[in-house]
Amino acid sequence: MSKVDIRRLAEELGISPSTVSRSLRDSHEISESTKNRVRALAAALDYQPHPYASGLRKHKSKTIAVVVPEVANNFFSRVFSGIESITLANNYHVLIYLTHESYEKEVSFIHHLKNGRVDGVIMSLSSHTKNFDHILSLQAADIPVIFFDRICEEIDTAKITTNDFESSYAATNLLIHSGCKRIAHLTTSLHLTTTQKRRDGYLAACRESNLPIEPELLIHENTEEETEKKLTALLSSEHGADGVFAAVEKLSLITYKVSKVLNIAIPDQLKLIAFANTESANYFSPSLTTIVQPAFEIGREAASILMNHLEKKRLPIPNSIIPIAATIIERDSTKS
Amino acid sequence: MSKVDIRRLAEELGISPSTVSRSLRDSHEISESTKNRVRALAAALDYQPHPYASGLRKHKSKTIAVVVPEVANNFFSRVFSGIESITLANNYHVLIYLTHESYEKEVSFIHHLKNGRVDGVIMSLSSHTKNFDHILSLQAADIPVIFFDRICEEIDTAKITTNDFESSYAATNLLIHSGCKRIAHLTTSLHLTTTQKRRDGYLAACRESNLPIEPELLIHENTEEETEKKLTALLSSEHGADGVFAAVEKLSLITYKVSKVLNIAIPDQLKLIAFANTESANYFSPSLTTIVQPAFEIGREAASILMNHLEKKRLPIPNSIIPIAATIIERDSTKS
Repeated sequence: MSKVDIRRLAEELGISPSTVSRSLRDSHEISESTKNRVRALAAALDYQPHPYASGLRKHKSKTIAVVVPEVANNFFSRVFSGIESITLANNYHVLIYLTHESYEKEVSFIHHLKNGRVDGVIMSLSSHTKNFDHILSLQAADIPVIFFDRICEEIDTAKITTNDFESSYAATNLLIHSGCKRIAHLTTSLHLTTTQKRRDGYLAACRESNLPIEPELLIHENTEEETEKKLTALLSSEHGADGVFAAVEKLSLITYKVSKVLNIAIPDQLKLIAFANTESANYFSPSLTTIVQPAFEIGREAASILMNHLEKKRLPIPNSIIPIAATIIERDSTKS
Repeated sequence: MSKVDIRRLAEELGISPSTVSRSLRDSHEISESTKNRVRALAAALDYQPHPYASGLRKHKSKTIAVVVPEVANNFFSRVFSGIESITLANNYHVLIYLTHESYEKEVSFIHHLKNGRVDGVIMSLSSHTKNFDHILSLQAADIPVIFFDRICEEIDTAKITTNDFESSYAATNLLIHSGCKRIAHLTTSLHLTTTQKRRDGYLAACRESNLPIEPELLIHENTEEETEKKLTALLSSEHGADGVFAAVEKLSLITYKVSKVLNIAIPDQLKLIAFANTESANYFSPSLTTIVQPAFEIGREAASILMNHLEKKRLPIPNSIIPIAATIIERDSTKS
């Protein structure tokens, strides 16, 4: 079966392609009877306008891009579901790009999004991004960009985050109130404002309670292997640690693993709290006390701001940080 | 800064847009010196050809669609990562559509992919899809489709799956060899060939060992709430069950939950094995014995077949089921 396009409709009706095209656009230059014949055949043959032809005409692709470090991750996959709930309702298509924490990939993706493939971008920075020229050039090309979670504060746009400082401060205090005296902080790259704020919340709570903040308690490695090595060294050392605050979900799994290997009982000898969006936290051994980011809501908020800007309302994008509060769920891993 | 397009290049150089366009296509009608001036300015202004204009010319969008039930799911998010590893290497863009198990959404998405937005589709069916006309009409529009996991056997194309029957048969036998006499099977919709084959593997192993197959042991509900209710009724009943084979990851969490509520000890009173791709299986209480589908490899295989067909090699898409074997990882939840 040949593709149903303007040419095919024109042939079957014995009229010119431009008459078909103008009929479908409801042009006043075409008689009602011709328009009706064209519409009837278009419906009968299930004619679909070529999406990119229509994109060229209207300068609107009805497509957005989501640029994230990865998708096999409970936080990012839930944010994506939130974004999708809004794009679906607005009949937008969504391209997804995974940076795998590579600045070079991020730059390359953004570069290819500048000329009309998408109407807007929602993104969370790679952990190695320190230069933001690629984002500025995207904005210069009139493609709006909205940040979530891993944001760039210097760029004028909406940035949806969690209350990272406050929730980290509260999480650290929860460990302190459960009796911890030497709390380790596990995180990844400290280039990101997100991880910096979580570390700052931890530091503020420790300082306030006069807890030691020694270099070996602050573990911020780029790979899981290095984190595991450093945590093993810390927990095997003379002073060790009696609490762990993991700023990233996967680092809580490393803490379970190392504790098991070293035969350290959670929560009796070591208490643990972590930023995590896994549904299984309740079934861990012991169950994991979590700081849960409102991932779905973050995605929904980012997409709503973008859709309100692109669609009929044409609302401006606010230049502000929009925090949505995280929730701490206490379970056995922090029991006194 | 105005967008850098053909018109802008033409204005700056004082030549016609069509001369610019032909220069960029390296037409023999244009002099080398003009072509060089155009190329130099295009490079200097970082000119990017409009992706859809180029798509119209070549009838290639360099874009594929991935249509899946959801993405906040360890199996589908890992398959997506496998797909992305191949599309990235081939410079393809990826649109993603979530059906949320709705047949109507699936039909609507496929309908909008028929006229040029994508060059091919990789999909896993919604659990309510029983009619396949939408897939046939996609193929009729010359858009190739590749299935994975939740496949339609009647449609001519490549279908990447796990060895569902064999791995389910082996998983059930593992429970039997650990001493189970009454094994429950938890699954979702039985419309899908995937879930049917997993059930059949379970039934074959039970029959072979003369274990009872009573209706209350076969729980196949559409919602988690209903599954929880039925499992609670079964485990509270006189004969109960001493083993559970969960065909879907989330149903293993329900089993942990119900056992906790009813104070049934895993593995002493109830053994549990499940299809699962979670990284945390090792940290569950007790750790979970899993049947691990090679999710990343499934995605990679599906995308490789599609890319080999769309790109230079133009290889035909094999009309066959391509199973990639799952691996059983024994942990504490099935210990004798």
